[in-house]
Amino acid sequence: IEPNYHCIVPLGKTLVKSLASLSISSSVMAKSKFEYVRNFEADDTCLRNCYIVVRLDGRNFHKFAEQHKFIKPNDNRALGLLTRSAVSVMEELEDIVIAYGQSDEFSFVFKRTTNWFKRRASKLMTHVASQFSSSYVFYWKEFFGDQPLLYPPGFDGRVVLYPTNRNLRDYLSWRQADCHINNLYNTVFWTLVQRGGLTTAQAEERLKVKDSNTHRSKHDETVTKRMKLPNEEEKDVNVTRSRKRVQAYHCDIIGEQFWEEHPGILEDDS
Amino acid sequence: IEPNYHCIVPLGKTLVKSLASLSISSSVMAKSKFEYVRNFEADDTCLRNCYIVVRLDGRNFHKFAEQHKFIKPNDNRALGLLTRSAVSVMEELEDIVIAYGQSDEFSFVFKRTTNWFKRRASKLMTHVASQFSSSYVFYWKEFFGDQPLLYPPGFDGRVVLYPTNRNLRDYLSWRQADCHINNLYNTVFWTLVQRGGLTTAQAEERLKVKDSNTHRSKHDETVTKRMKLPNEEEKDVNVTRSRKRVQAYHCDIIGEQFWEEHPGILEDDS
Amino acid sequence: IEPNYHCIVPLGKTLVKSLASLSISSSVMAKSKFEYVRNFEADDTCLRNCYIVVRLDGRNFHKFAEQHKFIKPNDNRALGLLTRSAVSVMEELEDIVIAYGQSDEFSFVFKRTTNWFKRRASKLMTHVASQFSSSYVFYWKEFFGDQPLLYPPGFDGRVVLYPTNRNLRDYLSWRQADCHINNLYNTVFWTLVQRGGLTTAQAEERLKVKDSNTHRSKHDETVTKRMKLPNEEEKDVNVTRSRKRVQAYHCDIIGEQFWEEHPGILEDDS
Amino acid sequence: IEPNYHCIVPLGKTLVKSLASLSISSSVMAKSKFEYVRNFEADDTCLRNCYIVVRLDGRNFHKFAEQHKFIKPNDNRALGLLTRSAVSVMEELEDIVIAYGQSDEFSFVFKRTTNWFKRRASKLMTHVASQFSSSYVFYWKEFFGDQPLLYPPGFDGRVVLYPTNRNLRDYLSWRQADCHINNLYNTVFWTLVQRGGLTTAQAEERLKVKDSNTHRSKHDETVTKRMKLPNEEEKDVNVTRSRKRVQAYHCDIIGEQFWEEHPGILEDDS
Repeated sequence: IEPNYHCIVPLGKTLVKSLASLSISSSVMAKSKFEYVRNFEADDTCLRNCYIVVRLDGRNFHKFAEQHKFIKPNDNRALGLLTRSAVSVMEELEDIVIAYGQSDEFSFVFKRTTNWFKRRASKLMTHVASQFSSSYVFYWKEFFGDQPLLYPPGFDGRVVLYPTNRNLRDYLSWRQADCHINNLYNTVFWTLVQRGGLTTAQAEERLKVKDSNTHRSKHDETVTKRMKLPNEEEKDVNVTRSRKRVQAYHCDIIGEQFWEEHPGILEDDS
Repeated sequence: IEPNYHCIVPLGKTLVKSLASLSISSSVMAKSKFEYVRNFEADDTCLRNCYIVVRLDGRNFHKFAEQHKFIKPNDNRALGLLTRSAVSVMEELEDIVIAYGQSDEFSFVFKRTTNWFKRRASKLMTHVASQFSSSYVFYWKEFFGDQPLLYPPGFDGRVVLYPTNRNLRDYLSWRQADCHINNLYNTVFWTLVQRGGLTTAQAEERLKVKDSNTHRSKHDETVTKRMKLPNEEEKDVNVTRSRKRVQAYHCDIIGEQFWEEHPGILEDDS
Repeated sequence: IEPNYHCIVPLGKTLVKSLASLSISSSVMAKSKFEYVRNFEADDTCLRNCYIVVRLDGRNFHKFAEQHKFIKPNDNRALGLLTRSAVSVMEELEDIVIAYGQSDEFSFVFKRTTNWFKRRASKLMTHVASQFSSSYVFYWKEFFGDQPLLYPPGFDGRVVLYPTNRNLRDYLSWRQADCHINNLYNTVFWTLVQRGGLTTAQAEERLKVKDSNTHRSKHDETVTKRMKLPNEEEKDVNVTRSRKRVQAYHCDIIGEQFWEEHPGILEDDS
Repeated sequence: IEPNYHCIVPLGKTLVKSLASLSISSSVMAKSKFEYVRNFEADDTCLRNCYIVVRLDGRNFHKFAEQHKFIKPNDNRALGLLTRSAVSVMEELEDIVIAYGQSDEFSFVFKRTTNWFKRRASKLMTHVASQFSSSYVFYWKEFFGDQPLLYPPGFDGRVVLYPTNRNLRDYLSWRQADCHINNLYNTVFWTLVQRGGLTTAQAEERLKVKDSNTHRSKHDETVTKRMKLPNEEEKDVNVTRSRKRVQAYHCDIIGEQFWEEHPGILEDDS
């Protein structure tokens, strides 16, 4: 504590005293003198007629997952909480047409003609990040019951614009392909550890295969095995929205079928 | 609900089946085909050698305050929770040299030479918004006890850059002058309602004074009265940080004194 | 001239002397000390898969036209020079698929997949502005013969992105509709002055019509008259490019015909 | 030439005919239908209270210098024309406080409080690039006499912001140190070729020294020699401006002296 520490009460008194001699009108004058600083704000309106994607990523979620004993390779409680938080975002914000999540990340797609927050990138991404994070803590108990949340988690985010339907679909496919790779790897890895009796170091070593053929067959084999286990849905989640009713799917969004069955998500490229 | 609704289990099976015939290497190929979409991300690095300010604002906090029965004009529990959340942000993020808050807003100032998140504006503001929001829910109970939080609150944010010490100080003064005006108004307003027996509509009418002289004297008077009440500190809060120890002050940051007593906050204009 | 004026020679000597005691290696050291200033440059890469439009506008061309006695309402020499300058831009820069000009403005459209200058907005617009301006002076004599150019003219520019074919076509239609309005107005205005014997003030007054019906018939009438004059092509110009051969057209780009006859200009919206 | 070539006259007639049936009011309606495309323009206002630097670079000036037989290592005519063009820019645009040039590049510094073009980056840099380029062609004859300019040259540009006086001075020092290095190298190189009888390949080889000590003494030696040659001012140029009178200096801007003697260029860091 610094020697010139100002405890709250005396400082408060000083301030109130000085305020007592201030009128609102003189405060207004003071305020207008400083108000020029508003001109330093930059305009970050998103280009019109592009899809606006906000992607969130968990901060240090590897450590967070360990500390909260998430089940490996996939913890259904954690995935459920992630999805619940995404649904909360979609209920609060207008014009999100689809959201897609896996692991500790979630992407939210605003329709290309949205005028929510006047398309200001900073407002869109901070509101998504904020609503998602407060929901994550708020709904924790619904998924983890009495297991306590040890500290408030953090997420960071970004905005990316996509001009065409093809670009947007390729973005979502990119995230889902990434999810598949992670899922396949993690499933194999934890099967080797949990059922094969390897240490994590040994499992890691075993998965560094030199030959891509070996690589392929090994994993296919393991994946086939994996199918016999219970609770084995793919751990990625799409959330679509229609008039505040939000529906979660576990499905393939790389192929055509999903898009043919949900024609309302994409708008015409015009 | 659509007729072609895909329930999670069957869809999951379909997906796992299709995955079973996929190898990691073919997934990697698929991923690399889509990876071009990364090039659509824009670089939003903040101009070097400028202070980076992230300001958060509560979404619909007027309604939130009513629904949670915040005490008028200032609720010390709410202010304490706001401050606690800001402290949590300062503990998690590097290089925040001062934070200033009032009502439902909070400003965080990163030092001008920070390289946190490589100065990427989107990362900085979303992480602040996220950490603040998750902390707000996490620490709710510490300040509101058994009174339940009804739903997860939201905040939006923005980034503003200030090139010089004078500009930064004027920004903080602007926010504090704004705070004073709101405080003065609200204190008068609620004194008229709670002690003077006026309805809120009558109080509002009474505060629409025509003459600026009347205006001034009336408020001064009320402010003087206000000083006799307990718990009457100004409801704005500065938070400064030093080696992860964060200290909250209630004080004047418009004048010179605060800055002379805390020389470490500002860096030289060079 | 200041008292402490440094004439070039002595200062040059001083500098050369100090340089004489410098080696390249110490200069390199000095340079590397300052080189951090490069990090202040912002990245202004244009969003991928969007058309990049650079539009130039003449600075004070009203005065320029008067001083160089441009013929009213349209001066074919001036329009020819404008077009020649645009052709020069298209010969020098890659990937411009169409250009459209009128009066003292010209728009250049880069194809949506261009990687010219790595899509850096500042480079694209300054190079266009520079090449156009140097060409305007360079080719002046070809169009104005012995009439001298009195001073070097200036143009300013901007970059605008359009995500879809529809948006791009609407941009070009907007500029052509603007051209038509100006042409119609100017033709009427100068006919009233040159053939009707009105002063410019009287003509201006006469064209402030109250009733839109009167407005319409009056102009139609005049336009019909205008058709009898020689040299009366519309004064807007499209320039399209194919393998460094550039062709100028005077034609309608609002309707479908032009686009059907030039299918190579637009790429698919994907 | 395409089979469906539209010659100018028939197309012109078609257009005029269709225009004849249009009124201004219906053109105005058409225009307003397309006018939404204006919303695609981005705001690129420069951050307040920062110096705005526009730097131009010649496009392919190595080839341009060869084709126009510029004298090696430095051509006073080319440098004079460069300076004349910079002076033209400073006469036309407001608020440029200093400009610095060398070889085929020139930097223009706008004062930190300028509001020229409302601080819009695109306007500032395109206008500088345009005025510089048209001036370069316009004043060519003053410096090169009867030697013809073979084609219109191009320059590209960029905008960089500097928040403090120190940053701005370091920027200018960086450019001047770069100039010194180039000058020293080029002088040695061309002395070896022109007086030492080496081929350009031999000179290049000779200047690839392995040892930095050898490196240093060799160059010092040559630089000393260089001082005996006539016309040996350093080939960089500063241009400062005061009430439309612009003065060119050849001097050192890295040290303190220049800045003490020209106190009006920098504003206070506040």
